[in-house]
Amino acid sequence: MAEFKHLVLVKFKEDAKVDEILKGLEKLVSEMDLVKSFEWGEDNESHEMLRQGLTHAFMMTFNSKDDFTAFSSHPKHVEFSTGFSAAIDKAVLLDFPSVSIKVPAA
Amino acid sequence: MAEFKHLVLVKFKEDAKVDEILKGLEKLVSEMDLVKSFEWGEDNESHEMLRQGLTHAFMMTFNSKDDFTAFSSHPKHVEFSTGFSAAIDKAVLLDFPSVSIKVPAA
Repeated sequence: MAEFKHLVLVKFKEDAKVDEILKGLEKLVSEMDLVKSFEWGEDNESHEMLRQGLTHAFMMTFNSKDDFTAFSSHPKHVEFSTGFSAAIDKAVLLDFPSVSIKVPAA
Repeated sequence: MAEFKHLVLVKFKEDAKVDEILKGLEKLVSEMDLVKSFEWGEDNESHEMLRQGLTHAFMMTFNSKDDFTAFSSHPKHVEFSTGFSAAIDKAVLLDFPSVSIKVPAA
């Protein structure tokens, strides 16, 4: 079965405490077995126009859509999301079953 | 060393031949050893507002930023990008060194 991805791209508000948010995210995913993997990154170099002002990408992987749904509605995620939403200026979210075309060579 | 991610979210034009574009992408990444892994997905379910109209996510992973830079400027990628760009209505691109917080359990 396809893995399910939760992709969040954001631009934080100028006064957002990004380090604290990252720590909160790290705590959240470490506490929740539903989250299979989590990666993030910050793009400081691409053209502003290509990024549409977005600076951070957060990528979570779940074993199934059901796992993602359970994570989404979990009180820990809901609580985190409230603070997260208050800290962002704009965001793009995409959730989808992932199609792996090429996997890393062993 | 951190892996380097190339993330592309798009909304295709209504008359875009998405199947052909996906085949072209598959061919491109299979021919180019610089691309370590490639996944994509289509989000048909999230709220339009959260997706900002974007429907497809393409995620490439490279062993290093240098590999990504070499891929970016490679004639095969440049040729593909020309057709790809012509088929999209809007796009968001983020390129960044990836920070892995949680990896799949063995």
